[in-house]
Amino acid sequence: MTSREALTEYVSAFTHSLVEQGVTDAVISPGSRSTPLAYACMKQEGMTVYRQIDERSAAYFALGMAKASGKPVMLLCTSGTAAANYFPAIVEAYYARVPLIVVTADRPHELREVGAPQAINQINLFGSHVKWATDLPLPETENQLAFLSRHLHRSVRNASSEPKGPVHINVPFREPLRIDFEQAYESLGEIAHFGGEMSLSADSQAFLQDLVKKEKGLLIVGEMTAPMPEEFWGFIQNLGWPVLADPLSNLRGNVPAEARHFIIDSYDALLKSEAFKEDVVPEVVIRVGPQPVSKPLTLFLAAAKPEKYIVFDESPMLRDAQSVVTHHIQASANSLWKMPMDTGNANSYREKWTAASALYWEVVERHCQEELDEGVLAKVFFDRLEACDLIVGSSMPIRDVDTFFKATERDVMVYANRGANGIDGVVSTAFGVQAAKQRPAYLFIGDLSFLHDMNGLIASKMQKTDLTIVIMNNDGGGIFSYLPQSQEERHFEDLFGTPTGLTFGDAAKMYDAQYAAVETAEQLAEALDQPKNKAVKIIEVFTDRQHNVVTHRKLWSRFNEELATQ
Amino acid sequence: MTSREALTEYVSAFTHSLVEQGVTDAVISPGSRSTPLAYACMKQEGMTVYRQIDERSAAYFALGMAKASGKPVMLLCTSGTAAANYFPAIVEAYYARVPLIVVTADRPHELREVGAPQAINQINLFGSHVKWATDLPLPETENQLAFLSRHLHRSVRNASSEPKGPVHINVPFREPLRIDFEQAYESLGEIAHFGGEMSLSADSQAFLQDLVKKEKGLLIVGEMTAPMPEEFWGFIQNLGWPVLADPLSNLRGNVPAEARHFIIDSYDALLKSEAFKEDVVPEVVIRVGPQPVSKPLTLFLAAAKPEKYIVFDESPMLRDAQSVVTHHIQASANSLWKMPMDTGNANSYREKWTAASALYWEVVERHCQEELDEGVLAKVFFDRLEACDLIVGSSMPIRDVDTFFKATERDVMVYANRGANGIDGVVSTAFGVQAAKQRPAYLFIGDLSFLHDMNGLIASKMQKTDLTIVIMNNDGGGIFSYLPQSQEERHFEDLFGTPTGLTFGDAAKMYDAQYAAVETAEQLAEALDQPKNKAVKIIEVFTDRQHNVVTHRKLWSRFNEELATQ
Repeated sequence: MTSREALTEYVSAFTHSLVEQGVTDAVISPGSRSTPLAYACMKQEGMTVYRQIDERSAAYFALGMAKASGKPVMLLCTSGTAAANYFPAIVEAYYARVPLIVVTADRPHELREVGAPQAINQINLFGSHVKWATDLPLPETENQLAFLSRHLHRSVRNASSEPKGPVHINVPFREPLRIDFEQAYESLGEIAHFGGEMSLSADSQAFLQDLVKKEKGLLIVGEMTAPMPEEFWGFIQNLGWPVLADPLSNLRGNVPAEARHFIIDSYDALLKSEAFKEDVVPEVVIRVGPQPVSKPLTLFLAAAKPEKYIVFDESPMLRDAQSVVTHHIQASANSLWKMPMDTGNANSYREKWTAASALYWEVVERHCQEELDEGVLAKVFFDRLEACDLIVGSSMPIRDVDTFFKATERDVMVYANRGANGIDGVVSTAFGVQAAKQRPAYLFIGDLSFLHDMNGLIASKMQKTDLTIVIMNNDGGGIFSYLPQSQEERHFEDLFGTPTGLTFGDAAKMYDAQYAAVETAEQLAEALDQPKNKAVKIIEVFTDRQHNVVTHRKLWSRFNEELATQ
Repeated sequence: MTSREALTEYVSAFTHSLVEQGVTDAVISPGSRSTPLAYACMKQEGMTVYRQIDERSAAYFALGMAKASGKPVMLLCTSGTAAANYFPAIVEAYYARVPLIVVTADRPHELREVGAPQAINQINLFGSHVKWATDLPLPETENQLAFLSRHLHRSVRNASSEPKGPVHINVPFREPLRIDFEQAYESLGEIAHFGGEMSLSADSQAFLQDLVKKEKGLLIVGEMTAPMPEEFWGFIQNLGWPVLADPLSNLRGNVPAEARHFIIDSYDALLKSEAFKEDVVPEVVIRVGPQPVSKPLTLFLAAAKPEKYIVFDESPMLRDAQSVVTHHIQASANSLWKMPMDTGNANSYREKWTAASALYWEVVERHCQEELDEGVLAKVFFDRLEACDLIVGSSMPIRDVDTFFKATERDVMVYANRGANGIDGVVSTAFGVQAAKQRPAYLFIGDLSFLHDMNGLIASKMQKTDLTIVIMNNDGGGIFSYLPQSQEERHFEDLFGTPTGLTFGDAAKMYDAQYAAVETAEQLAEALDQPKNKAVKIIEVFTDRQHNVVTHRKLWSRFNEELATQ
């Protein structure tokens, strides 16, 4: 066997195994050392290739795809700093538990750490932020294919097992790097695999049976990247508790009418009221998914210290930043919905929540008639969304969803990067979600976050897409105006506000995107309604950071007063 | 002492120690957790603060500053993926041996790995690509200042000792994060420090004394980020050998007229001729600095296998990718220039090099009259540069410098990122060099590399600068057309050419930069001569990837023929 034949066989086996394991999408950045695997991806039946020149954006694109599809996505880059550019998205994937197969091409051992060009130490490059890292052998004439197939099986299963996450495969290649496109590949066969799910133990079922009979209970649902199974809706109606739906729970869209009054979509506002908080101290809390975005909810639970605070988490690494969780059930959330139970809960406790929530949305409606700020404009936007995916920035935008996105039957799925809450990579994540879902997507983002990943737009030049981007341009870091730093005038604009003076009409031109600049609710509605005639539509909404803070606070105090006199 | 007083004292001591140790520049990205240190930097006398919103670009900006100034630069960001964005520049700094003090703010221990927002595992975040990593204690009321001062001393000395490189300081802060701006800080005093230099041992001097008497010797000078000391010029005239000057040796600018004929600036072209290579096999080679860019030179030395191939490198990690170096002298290059020696070398060997070099430049001049391609345009550009810094991309641009930048007395310093040769971060590196040197700077870059770090331009909105960017836009990855992959037509444009169709006139508008689009030598000259009236001037030069390869090859074959018949 010639070395070219061996190389061709090796990379063909590589991509064949991945596709067999269900990895059908690869995001590739241009480079030389990765040539054999890039060719193999192009050649591989069942593999779809996406391209991005900026590896940082490529990794976030893959993250968005994997998050929205639930399936691991392959990343491929050349050796050197290219691989280091993956790091931010890998860190996010690790904490957000998103499966990625990160493949970095490498120089062979004799060119590592000897001053050769574009050669860095790629062994364990991503440290503790991947679930597993392996360094494969060079393609050689002896038969390595059975090992390769098993190692790829391990990689994909590792990435796909709870808690899901990224794995790193480093693959060295010696020159020459060209493969034989005519060479046929016949698989030796792949490991067959049956997946499992962490189910409820008998003792945890017995424990839960008593608790679900309590009236003063809360079900908190954190981030869920897939729609809830059918059983969920029967479960919550049976349970009778208020369901606090995080913006990323995907319980604010696709809500069946009959279950609508169980979903509390306004708790972030409600729990700013001291009186309300005292009135709704729960006896028992069950949470599925990670900690919700809402700081008022976090503070409420930390103060209330419910006697039983149960968290479902398949991972041993329980998420409990306030150290108030009392029981960790290491099982899937879905096992809860399947649990047989007999409750017949009366609902006066839930009534308190639904009544306050109804009042909140009334106040919001009036507020929106009278004021004009980022939140009001966000609501105009959210109210117009039909079947689509909505990707939101991790800073103010997700908080705007928490405050202004009212639960609806409309088929809107919401995604954000809340593993590490970075403002980076959000544009690319949105393109990735769109690529996975293949339906219209909307990105709701601040100006700094948009600017940080403007390179995400390169994706739109390399494959088909359908994305509308709503940029809230308040010329800087809006969230800082809500933090204690804003009370210190010195250096505030230099260090936190950081106005750049940049607007994005020219960026839209550069990327041949449809563009509108708006300032009012009417203009925004008009821009949203305007037929989309480009792959990307950018609506830039100009708002004022100082004014946003004032009107936000006005809304809270107004609601607080009305709630007190209800 | 209140916790605010302790916090204020801690961060004041931190920045005070850095300034005392010579770290006078900080590049800060906006964020909340880093607030106390950001305030302290603003408050610290002797510290200049630069700002960049994109942490990846911020780190490359700091890299550029540190490379050009030779002094460590401080980086500061908040917790989370912000820090991970530093990784590419840190990897580059590690291999390019550039000193950086990377400071990442962190959440306190009780918020790490517990699902708290924006908290990731930052301990040893950059793995084996920093020289040292430390996790500092929280600011507390007991006196930690003496320890802090010593640990910062260690950090700065570590970064600044050969081989220089990045160090990572992780600093946890608990809320509240505001300091007292009125609180005075009195230093306890800093460690006094005397630096050393690795000097020549007596036995290596004796060894060298014999060798420098040989006639057929080559002195190869790799990357040097500071101008050579005065002794160098006397040394090479005494030595009499040809000096092969890498594009980054900074021996192509500031060359004294009397030393001009010792500097060989065309070896990359000369060593493409088989006949010439046979004619100039050296007996002895001395190299200082890393391996040069030139592949023909690398191949020549690997084939020639000189009996004595001596490398000066203060680091134990000898750079010798071809395994042909025979002697490693672990001492500074400067110790060589200071060595007393008595040579009186005849120079027929050097004459061969200078004669061939003279012919090369003649051929180039004629070529430039007759052809129009990227190289010809590059020469037009290089020939017009007066006192300035020139930052070049790591892919084709640096090779264009190797081929078309003729040694000159003009004060032009050349910089590039050749630690890992990435195409990332180059725009920011250029802004950083400009900030350190405070004189006009020029960036020579390809379209993909410019696009990769377009966010580098954000720097121009946050502080004064003076940069002219010449973008060679051949719509994709030009260098791949010179690699074996180009012989495979299948997928070439998809995977390697990767045309984006993007041009940068709109980007210039977005950033309020002066802009010109050019295609001919005359237009380029005119655009360069046009008075600069903005902080950034962008000249976009449109060329054709296929045509560039054809004309490049024409130049080589023409020169080869004339050299053969000389």
